[in-house]
Amino acid sequence: MLINISSMKIYFAGAIRGGRNDAKIYEKIITYLGNIGQVLTEHVGDQDLGNMGEKGGIDMAIHKRDIKWLQSADVIVAEVTTPSLGVGYELGIAEKLKKPVLCLYRPSKDKRLSAMVKGNNQLSLWEYHNLTEARSCIDSFFKSLV
Amino acid sequence: MLINISSMKIYFAGAIRGGRNDAKIYEKIITYLGNIGQVLTEHVGDQDLGNMGEKGGIDMAIHKRDIKWLQSADVIVAEVTTPSLGVGYELGIAEKLKKPVLCLYRPSKDKRLSAMVKGNNQLSLWEYHNLTEARSCIDSFFKSLV
Repeated sequence: MLINISSMKIYFAGAIRGGRNDAKIYEKIITYLGNIGQVLTEHVGDQDLGNMGEKGGIDMAIHKRDIKWLQSADVIVAEVTTPSLGVGYELGIAEKLKKPVLCLYRPSKDKRLSAMVKGNNQLSLWEYHNLTEARSCIDSFFKSLV
Repeated sequence: MLINISSMKIYFAGAIRGGRNDAKIYEKIITYLGNIGQVLTEHVGDQDLGNMGEKGGIDMAIHKRDIKWLQSADVIVAEVTTPSLGVGYELGIAEKLKKPVLCLYRPSKDKRLSAMVKGNNQLSLWEYHNLTEARSCIDSFFKSLV
């Protein structure tokens, strides 16, 4: 698939109501992705956003907006370390929309990534341990698209 | 949609690697669903199954099997209280396959269900507090299909 990087729309997916332990990492990944294209979902890295989600956000409006963003996105980048219904849902929809998907995962001893992601060859799964590695994964993934 | 209840295939979705706190509830829901149709994913309620998932299960084989089951299922019933990437993914795929989906959720004060589920009018979401209520939700949902 040939994509014009400069005008690329990126949908970043990370846990919100599933838990905000990785919110700082999301923010740093989003900042890095912002150098590559337009991140549609910048709010996922907002440090003021807690696990109760967007204030005043009506769920149906959020769902409608996010589906519209998913449809318009050229690429989906998901951080999948914190289990999240929303991120999983977005991966399923993205797969059916035949969008390129990068999943970033920090492995640990006592946890195991879902087989729906780990055993899925329709997405690119990269493990990382720190932000430098995450940035390298992102670079490699975007290079593979052009 | 008209479905022949007696030969119905049911895909039950619940968290495995996302956490096994609700495994007993899954088991009881699966037992109840077994009176209605054939539950393809009985292992999700297996009390010996921990959060490291199926022993010896190769992730690609699990993904392939589960997608096949999802495609063949007449109905998806998901317990969505414990955040799970796999359950979310299955909901996204099921929606795109235009399958009827029932989501069961136990509300609590300090948590909020993903807007991708709560704000999604393409699935049936029912809140419950105990198994009696869950069974009533299941009955109502299946009555709506025939």
